[in-house]
Amino acid sequence: MNTRKPTMADVARQAGVSLKTVSRVVNQEPHVRATLQQRVHAAISALGYRRNEAAARLARGATMLTLGLVMENISNEFYSRLAAAVEAASAEHEALVVFGSYEESADKERMLIESMYARGVDSLIVVPSAADHGWLAEHPGLTTVFVDRVPLGLAAADVVLLDDVWGGRTATEHLLARGHRRIALISDDHGLSSVHDRATGYRTALAAAGVPADEELVVRGVFEPGRVSREVTRLLDLPSPPTAFFATNNRAAIGILQALRERPERPAYVSFDDFALADVFSPGVTVVRYDVSRLARSAVDLLLNPSPAPRRIKVPVELVARGSGEVPPP
Amino acid sequence: MNTRKPTMADVARQAGVSLKTVSRVVNQEPHVRATLQQRVHAAISALGYRRNEAAARLARGATMLTLGLVMENISNEFYSRLAAAVEAASAEHEALVVFGSYEESADKERMLIESMYARGVDSLIVVPSAADHGWLAEHPGLTTVFVDRVPLGLAAADVVLLDDVWGGRTATEHLLARGHRRIALISDDHGLSSVHDRATGYRTALAAAGVPADEELVVRGVFEPGRVSREVTRLLDLPSPPTAFFATNNRAAIGILQALRERPERPAYVSFDDFALADVFSPGVTVVRYDVSRLARSAVDLLLNPSPAPRRIKVPVELVARGSGEVPPP
Repeated sequence: MNTRKPTMADVARQAGVSLKTVSRVVNQEPHVRATLQQRVHAAISALGYRRNEAAARLARGATMLTLGLVMENISNEFYSRLAAAVEAASAEHEALVVFGSYEESADKERMLIESMYARGVDSLIVVPSAADHGWLAEHPGLTTVFVDRVPLGLAAADVVLLDDVWGGRTATEHLLARGHRRIALISDDHGLSSVHDRATGYRTALAAAGVPADEELVVRGVFEPGRVSREVTRLLDLPSPPTAFFATNNRAAIGILQALRERPERPAYVSFDDFALADVFSPGVTVVRYDVSRLARSAVDLLLNPSPAPRRIKVPVELVARGSGEVPPP
Repeated sequence: MNTRKPTMADVARQAGVSLKTVSRVVNQEPHVRATLQQRVHAAISALGYRRNEAAARLARGATMLTLGLVMENISNEFYSRLAAAVEAASAEHEALVVFGSYEESADKERMLIESMYARGVDSLIVVPSAADHGWLAEHPGLTTVFVDRVPLGLAAADVVLLDDVWGGRTATEHLLARGHRRIALISDDHGLSSVHDRATGYRTALAAAGVPADEELVVRGVFEPGRVSREVTRLLDLPSPPTAFFATNNRAAIGILQALRERPERPAYVSFDDFALADVFSPGVTVVRYDVSRLARSAVDLLLNPSPAPRRIKVPVELVARGSGEVPPP
């Protein structure tokens, strides 16, 4: 993945022919006009094109070049950015991407994966639900890389994660450094390793600062912005309310923004996950950000280079201060 | 599409077996245990499941059940919502969806389509670029439905559109009714039929109100929010600036929001396309909204029910007042 190799698409462009024609020539299929064959061979020489693993598979059977991407919901910005990045990384290997959303249903997740497998997709990138994934061991023909979360019930799996503990800790330390002591945690299901690890980072930062963790300020298991908004309102109405929030994902940040629209308080907040409009609000939203392309490329790389030993990659994250995380306590 | 028919996935759930097992039983493949066969047949009877067209194709060859979705960029919210809706509509027919983004490159759009076709995807939903699509006639085996925009260079094509002229006219009338007379148009490439039609609606409303169109207030060919933001700033600095804006898509609305963050003026604005955070800003963003599921379902319906005569479906739109479109002129 270091330097971009010329692809079949580059050859098609250079030769001024369709991708299908290049594929036919490369695979030595009959009925290609001699002039077209010459143009394709000239382009192959000019570009130094070499059939790669993906192209070799294309010659053996079309569906093998299709990756499956299984996610919670593509209309959530985290997933749409991930999908765009997986598609771009796959295109570099001339692979297509089939995608599917399981919403919050582990049953649907399993059906999606089995349905993809039944139709010849044997390479999968999965953002796993919180359910047990031991059943995947029944499908030894499936090559699966997990992204963002560690799957439960699989002893050996390739996983690409964000540095969630570090991100949670850094976000909380950022708020502590501005003088906040009552910092609420707004979090999704702790059965998801990403959420669990971000919460661990939050607790680690509090402990290191000698600030006792107050369970009254910890909200778990909420991901829908409307519910987050109600929880934030409830917390702000406490006798001793939080002066700051750490949101473990972009959906929680949206819920905080919705709640604050109706409130006089101006608490500080930091969110895990960047989002398109984060810098348009006043103040801008301080976030823990990462390179989603790196997440996607790492996953595609692992898929295309299988190994008997399970691998775990950790993608770094960084804090981007935009205003909302720098508000002092009242 | 009126009442949901039981799917193979429903049968699998009812029988407590994998989708693959149901598929094997339905397609009378060998090596399925008798007890499993009985459970599947019992579930089929209980649910009244009947093999549909899609399932029948599954029996003939796996890849035929995969739809291709070709879009500009899935990380743009319009496309991610459309992709989610196409996926949901396809799942009802037990079809998988392959997707691809062509950014702004008509070359890449063509390569994507040819690449999908070369791998057995023969049913495509395309949001076409502004380039000529006459070359698609070379692929008579491809069943294509276009969404959101009319493709150029194809005399006969199935197309699902929004009611763009009505939406553009209604948005502009809404601003005129609040007393605005200097209304700017912020628009993408007019070679796209959707943009062209929304602009036509804008001009029609101005003409009907006897307000002369001022070309100084018309911005064309911008879609990147940063560029929109600079254009809005330039317009607000005119000797006779606009007091209101009509943005022809969500990206333009984001550019307006970015520009206004730095400005003292509070012009009115209405945007075509709803977006997740539109109601979180103060004031909320007044938008022209539509049911993206209806757009997607119509496209999938046309794909699965081919007809020799080209069809055109128009999905209605509505104006949702949230505050930004109701600001009076200064």
